[in-house]
Amino acid sequence: MLELCLLGTGGMLPLPYRALTSLMVRYNGSSILIDCGEGTQNQIRLQGWSFKPIDVICITHFHADHISGLPGMLLTMGNAERTEPLTMIGPRGLEHVVNSLRIIAPELPFEIKFIELEQPEEVIEICGLRIQAFRVNHRVTCYGYNIELDRAGKFDAARARALGLPVQYWSLLQKGETVDYEGNVYTSDMVMGSPRKGLKVTYCTDTRPVDAIAECAKDADLFICEGMYGEEEKLSKAKEHKHMMMREAAELAKEAQVHEMWLTHYSPATNRPKEFEAMVQSIFPQGYIAKDRTEKVLNFEED
Amino acid sequence: MLELCLLGTGGMLPLPYRALTSLMVRYNGSSILIDCGEGTQNQIRLQGWSFKPIDVICITHFHADHISGLPGMLLTMGNAERTEPLTMIGPRGLEHVVNSLRIIAPELPFEIKFIELEQPEEVIEICGLRIQAFRVNHRVTCYGYNIELDRAGKFDAARARALGLPVQYWSLLQKGETVDYEGNVYTSDMVMGSPRKGLKVTYCTDTRPVDAIAECAKDADLFICEGMYGEEEKLSKAKEHKHMMMREAAELAKEAQVHEMWLTHYSPATNRPKEFEAMVQSIFPQGYIAKDRTEKVLNFEED
Repeated sequence: MLELCLLGTGGMLPLPYRALTSLMVRYNGSSILIDCGEGTQNQIRLQGWSFKPIDVICITHFHADHISGLPGMLLTMGNAERTEPLTMIGPRGLEHVVNSLRIIAPELPFEIKFIELEQPEEVIEICGLRIQAFRVNHRVTCYGYNIELDRAGKFDAARARALGLPVQYWSLLQKGETVDYEGNVYTSDMVMGSPRKGLKVTYCTDTRPVDAIAECAKDADLFICEGMYGEEEKLSKAKEHKHMMMREAAELAKEAQVHEMWLTHYSPATNRPKEFEAMVQSIFPQGYIAKDRTEKVLNFEED
Repeated sequence: MLELCLLGTGGMLPLPYRALTSLMVRYNGSSILIDCGEGTQNQIRLQGWSFKPIDVICITHFHADHISGLPGMLLTMGNAERTEPLTMIGPRGLEHVVNSLRIIAPELPFEIKFIELEQPEEVIEICGLRIQAFRVNHRVTCYGYNIELDRAGKFDAARARALGLPVQYWSLLQKGETVDYEGNVYTSDMVMGSPRKGLKVTYCTDTRPVDAIAECAKDADLFICEGMYGEEEKLSKAKEHKHMMMREAAELAKEAQVHEMWLTHYSPATNRPKEFEAMVQSIFPQGYIAKDRTEKVLNFEED
């Protein structure tokens, strides 16, 4: 089960009624945050979620609306008595940017480990999840992120029984371990079916639409994508500032065959993004204009 | 006339229902901001005031709750198409701290002029106002600020007439200029009474109570002062972290004979600071537990 909350849906500037875009995902006692603009910590408080278990913070890029809330967030995590190391993932230069911002948050009770992304695609296994970063196309180096939770194949009790292996060893095989029992070696694949469909969330902002997005978002349970502008006459502006139209995001969602899409990162000039939802759904019916603190629980599908 | 708004009243951390302490003062088309924590720009928006005319930003000290909103504020001022230089005033190291935070706001359409405070007391004349900075006693170097608007003496038309000076020269004398008319020199003091009471606002956070505060706040029309804790049992905590009790602030207000006091910078653990207002008023009757966006217009007194 992945619990997630899109903490804010604004782009460029925080607004009193629309916080900056940020995603928080909870899994198995750990929390992962993607982006941390000014006000993100207030959204976490409103949501009633905790600061202490934030084990990973991913940053898409170093524009202020995606990272300006970081020094305050780190201090608040320290005040929540976190002492375990925090892992930060982001483009090359991450450590320099974070340390520069930490001029006002120099003392923290926890260590920060930095993972700077160098390749167009990188995979980091952390907190029992697989985080895939993929480079997109913005004015500065920017990455989208997949958060994936794998699901092992189904355990076949009949086969385990047929092998003659006592029940107390079954859970080891279920965990993928190898069992040596009475001179015989039993491996996981002897009793486990092929891996089942896991869970996948794709988060992608700020960027022009590029092939990598549709490829990386392929079959995602939830695709969270920027939709900076709704009005087609803003296309040249979107191209100039390397942002995406809501229409373009919907086309990516369709191409990637995702299960559901939430738009986010609306222009501060767009007062009622909901007005564009019908247009979006005419292209991709499961596309929604998300609001601040839209939340969802993703469960493995029934067998 | 000074228009002022205490944008937030929180200390330490931004909270969804209590923004970080910051004061905005408007005078004659200019705005002056004191402190700029995370969320300050949202409070300005809620208040309906403009970003573009912010000509001066004073910073009390470099703890995050007083400056974490700065990079976003500077970008928002740039988006408001400000091109005139901005003056920043603060403790020594200001330029280094601001430039370090500007790693995420490197390009601005306006210049920043820095005034770094070196002395225990310094006076800066700017925007037609007098800003007096006075050093207080916190864990790091910290300054309080007076914002003062002078008022010239009353023009004595009878004396001007008696001097035989034509009416068209009167306004020059009123502005303090000297007039040479038909071989005679007329100076301002010949027709102006002694200066009248002006307006004075004192802003003071974070600090232990020290003599300099009562001296500098003397006779202020409005004294805005931190009151981190209300409960007397928190005195040792206040001393340890170099903050002030509400009681101590009220005693300073009484000693300084200010006209009115607003408390601010409440501990995040204090859910209902209003509960301490009666205690405060038992010491200083014009003392109030301010709320976010408490506003006031200060006018010169009637002659």
